[in-house]
Amino acid sequence: MTRIDTSAETQPARAEKAPPALIALDWGTTALRAYLLDASGAVLDTRASSAGIMNLPKPAAEGGFDAVFDATCGAWLANDASLPVLAAGMVGSAQGWLEAPYVSTPADPAALVAGIVRVTTLKGVTVHIVPGVLEDGALPNVMRGEETQIFGALASDATLDQQPHGGLIGLPGTHAKWAVVSKGRIERFYTFMTGETFAALRDHTILGRTMRATDKHDLDAFIRGVDTAKNDGDAGLLATIFSTRTLGLTGQLQPEQQADYLSGLLIGHELRGLNEVLAREQAELAGKALRLIGNDALCERYRYALARFGCHDARTVAHATERGLHRIALQAGLIPASSSATN
Amino acid sequence: MTRIDTSAETQPARAEKAPPALIALDWGTTALRAYLLDASGAVLDTRASSAGIMNLPKPAAEGGFDAVFDATCGAWLANDASLPVLAAGMVGSAQGWLEAPYVSTPADPAALVAGIVRVTTLKGVTVHIVPGVLEDGALPNVMRGEETQIFGALASDATLDQQPHGGLIGLPGTHAKWAVVSKGRIERFYTFMTGETFAALRDHTILGRTMRATDKHDLDAFIRGVDTAKNDGDAGLLATIFSTRTLGLTGQLQPEQQADYLSGLLIGHELRGLNEVLAREQAELAGKALRLIGNDALCERYRYALARFGCHDARTVAHATERGLHRIALQAGLIPASSSATN
Repeated sequence: MTRIDTSAETQPARAEKAPPALIALDWGTTALRAYLLDASGAVLDTRASSAGIMNLPKPAAEGGFDAVFDATCGAWLANDASLPVLAAGMVGSAQGWLEAPYVSTPADPAALVAGIVRVTTLKGVTVHIVPGVLEDGALPNVMRGEETQIFGALASDATLDQQPHGGLIGLPGTHAKWAVVSKGRIERFYTFMTGETFAALRDHTILGRTMRATDKHDLDAFIRGVDTAKNDGDAGLLATIFSTRTLGLTGQLQPEQQADYLSGLLIGHELRGLNEVLAREQAELAGKALRLIGNDALCERYRYALARFGCHDARTVAHATERGLHRIALQAGLIPASSSATN
Repeated sequence: MTRIDTSAETQPARAEKAPPALIALDWGTTALRAYLLDASGAVLDTRASSAGIMNLPKPAAEGGFDAVFDATCGAWLANDASLPVLAAGMVGSAQGWLEAPYVSTPADPAALVAGIVRVTTLKGVTVHIVPGVLEDGALPNVMRGEETQIFGALASDATLDQQPHGGLIGLPGTHAKWAVVSKGRIERFYTFMTGETFAALRDHTILGRTMRATDKHDLDAFIRGVDTAKNDGDAGLLATIFSTRTLGLTGQLQPEQQADYLSGLLIGHELRGLNEVLAREQAELAGKALRLIGNDALCERYRYALARFGCHDARTVAHATERGLHRIALQAGLIPASSSATN
């Protein structure tokens, strides 16, 4: 029996392998993802941990952050103790390792770099933490982690922020973000609590009681929800969501369709609201070339919904997080710029 | 020591006490309220039970409805077994005692009477059940019980449904209803899941985590929420609710103010949506004389919110339920009309 060395297949030999130049951390509420990058931003190795900042194995005061950091990145640092470390996400929140106060919009990478805070681990390693971004006003908005993904998207798409009304980047999820970017800056952004509201309505109101769970995604029911929000949503979300129940009561929506319909309604109201705020600057979703950052299945749902609003160019940006961390590390001088240029 | 007979004080002697003429039941999901009325609709006695249709002491198939009915109304029927019985509310739903199929809008008392169903108790008493009302369309709406309260409000306010664009009646609550009434009919109505959505957001999303419970109602925070929905709510509810958190993060809203602010936001979005659908018929809340049906504290909140929308005439209609049941019983011939006319 022939033994096949699979590692030789998945790791093709390179003429000359670039050395590690950065440890990049995406440290959020529920997970930590760590990347070992070379100076050009190529990913040499990755680690993942479920030890998000709300899920540490021991309290922060007892070295919880240090323990997770050592377990995740210790082997990389054992080979090269001088590797710079850059982290983004909720690790910089008031509940994180060290608070990195928000930077205000409009925000560019230089502003983020100026706001970086440094924490020294028990073993003497300096961890640089990227600040989040705040947009103040009657409805303040905050992000932590998404700013880094947005600059990652800009780093890989040079024309995105050169559009007449600015580029538009959507980050679907629990708290969906929509950012307007222009000339390398985050100009403004909006938060929609779409994912979390969907879960609360499904799991904790009467709407969930007539739903039947299914593995099958019902695209027609989803689109119907989007269209209802778009075309019949004048009375607002509090009114339209009740149709999830009444369409069931009147035999027009099956129990296994109701969750997808409700999801479509909420995403439809999100896009309708986004269109309203874009209209203030004579912009609109119809005909817009925008970008999405997020998991493939969710971005695919948003593409279907965006198409109902006339937007047919909404590609997903891959690897936005590690590209953003690399971009900020370059700006911060953590990686020599000359080294990057030669790779 | 002198013994005071308090019953003589609380039940003043009447020249001639009218005999009971109707047992009127308001039987909802979580409670049953029973009224013993004379032919003029005056309340002679009341009973209350927590045995709503979802809270029966034993299953319906084992006589749960009969048991609750006997315990609540048995003494009244022992005195006069011929008393007619009329019930409204979820008791007529598919999960109730006997389903009374919905009557379609526009609906008047005659249509409700034509839709009454009759169930005979194990002891041979006929219970008449008022049907709910359905408004069909892309966003179907249903009510059960509110139709009876609405006709109760019309019975006590002769000019309400004679306004140019129809009268408007609001029933705040878990699922708030707003009905347009004209010439003695419910023309159309809307449902807003305001109360239930508020509870789901407060208890099951991140918004509740920074709230501090308090017994004190913070009117300023509530009004601020209403105004934000009205003046800065273009992006929609999914966007504005996040400000409950971010105004806290930026020190502009105290933890004990956040629940009232969120309540104001939701009620503000409800009224904003209502204004949008009223605008289709060149109507608006501003300057409107409308009526509210519901508990005093909640109606008071709505009055403050309505004032921000320019509506300063929104009195609460008292006793709408028993008046509505009396009105429908008259129409159904359960009480002789001549008897009522002489009282």
